[in-house]
Amino acid sequence: MRTLKLTLAYDGTRYVGWQRQAAGQSIQGLLEDALARFDGQRVVVHGAGRTDAGVHALGQVASFQFAPRHETATLLRALNAELPEDVRVLTVEEAVDDFHARFSARSKRYRYQLRNTAIANPFERAFEWHVPEPLDRAAMQEAARALAGTHDFAAFQSAGTEMSTTVRTMTHAGFTRDAGQLVFEIAGDGFLRHMVRAIVGTLVEVGRGARQPASLAQLLAGGTRADAGPTAPPHGLFLVSVDYD
Amino acid sequence: MRTLKLTLAYDGTRYVGWQRQAAGQSIQGLLEDALARFDGQRVVVHGAGRTDAGVHALGQVASFQFAPRHETATLLRALNAELPEDVRVLTVEEAVDDFHARFSARSKRYRYQLRNTAIANPFERAFEWHVPEPLDRAAMQEAARALAGTHDFAAFQSAGTEMSTTVRTMTHAGFTRDAGQLVFEIAGDGFLRHMVRAIVGTLVEVGRGARQPASLAQLLAGGTRADAGPTAPPHGLFLVSVDYD
Repeated sequence: MRTLKLTLAYDGTRYVGWQRQAAGQSIQGLLEDALARFDGQRVVVHGAGRTDAGVHALGQVASFQFAPRHETATLLRALNAELPEDVRVLTVEEAVDDFHARFSARSKRYRYQLRNTAIANPFERAFEWHVPEPLDRAAMQEAARALAGTHDFAAFQSAGTEMSTTVRTMTHAGFTRDAGQLVFEIAGDGFLRHMVRAIVGTLVEVGRGARQPASLAQLLAGGTRADAGPTAPPHGLFLVSVDYD
Repeated sequence: MRTLKLTLAYDGTRYVGWQRQAAGQSIQGLLEDALARFDGQRVVVHGAGRTDAGVHALGQVASFQFAPRHETATLLRALNAELPEDVRVLTVEEAVDDFHARFSARSKRYRYQLRNTAIANPFERAFEWHVPEPLDRAAMQEAARALAGTHDFAAFQSAGTEMSTTVRTMTHAGFTRDAGQLVFEIAGDGFLRHMVRAIVGTLVEVGRGARQPASLAQLLAGGTRADAGPTAPPHGLFLVSVDYD
């Protein structure tokens, strides 16, 4: 057996998320089924980030053990032929034996796209959260600065998954803007359940003037989930990339 | 009655085109029905360009006569509230009495988006023609230069609509490129049925090496539709803008 590493991009609109579920199509399930149809091998494919239902990926990473019967270029073509058009494998590489897409990951980067114009963009409606009210971008940027560094992100964790620690280290957090689109990017060593969406929901409250920019720092210093803002909708969120040593 | 001018953007994926048809939803039908639901007035809405099924618009222009009961800002909000998310009215303006979106137009600009990479982009799949084989961009650009100016475009007209003349004047035609995307733009005083898509289909044959760059000039000098290349698929095409005096 050898260990293979895939990078993939997907439009998450139609899917229940990365992970196999009792009902609905998952990205993990699509990949495992495509490998089985191509080669007959039934394997478990591990993903670096468990993207939720409706969340997209520009550079998700997956790994699995596979009998060495095919060239990586052959597998790349075969997987893309088997997969639906909204899921594309970008690369297939051989990895060291103990490589694991999730446990070997050192950091991940996420992007959240907002459209802050009175009228939504009909071409991007599946990939950005449309907020028609004017947002104070300077206040949002100021608030976001508190996120970089090592903090307890418990206030931005949804119930449902108990982690041994809610302390994470962010190496980057901030906004860029391009013609009505407001793009938030955040990179760090780990993310709690719904963390990026809870942060974005809170930052939008800052942008609306419903919350002070300093409140982000206060939430990191000891807030609870109830003190933070609502969870932003999934369709604006992208897993951009995953870094390994 | 006053004459109103709308600009609108739409994702044409789900529609039979601009024009009302016996079956299926059209952009014209959606607008006429939205106006009737809002105000009870049944009017005919004229479009500047009759985009085909699956073709998109960034700046389609439409006009209609309407009893002056509402502010333009009210109509803008009401139409966007009535229309589906993939059709957005961008502006509503009062126009001079004899303004007609189609007959008053002086020029139009179209864009055609191609993806020239081995693997398609899953986020843009509804908005670009994926051509995986390497294309010779310099040859395509050279061929496209023949299009600017006044020519007989009969070789690029689909059967079905007889025009009194097939001579048109193009003020711009050429490619730009951005990270695997190849974008063709063409502007002129009028376009024949399927003309942009027939031009793009022919230019892609040039890019594949199946046809010489000089063949575009030869087709303009006296070719027939059978001499030109295939009609490119509709989903890469956008009506970008319409200019008036």
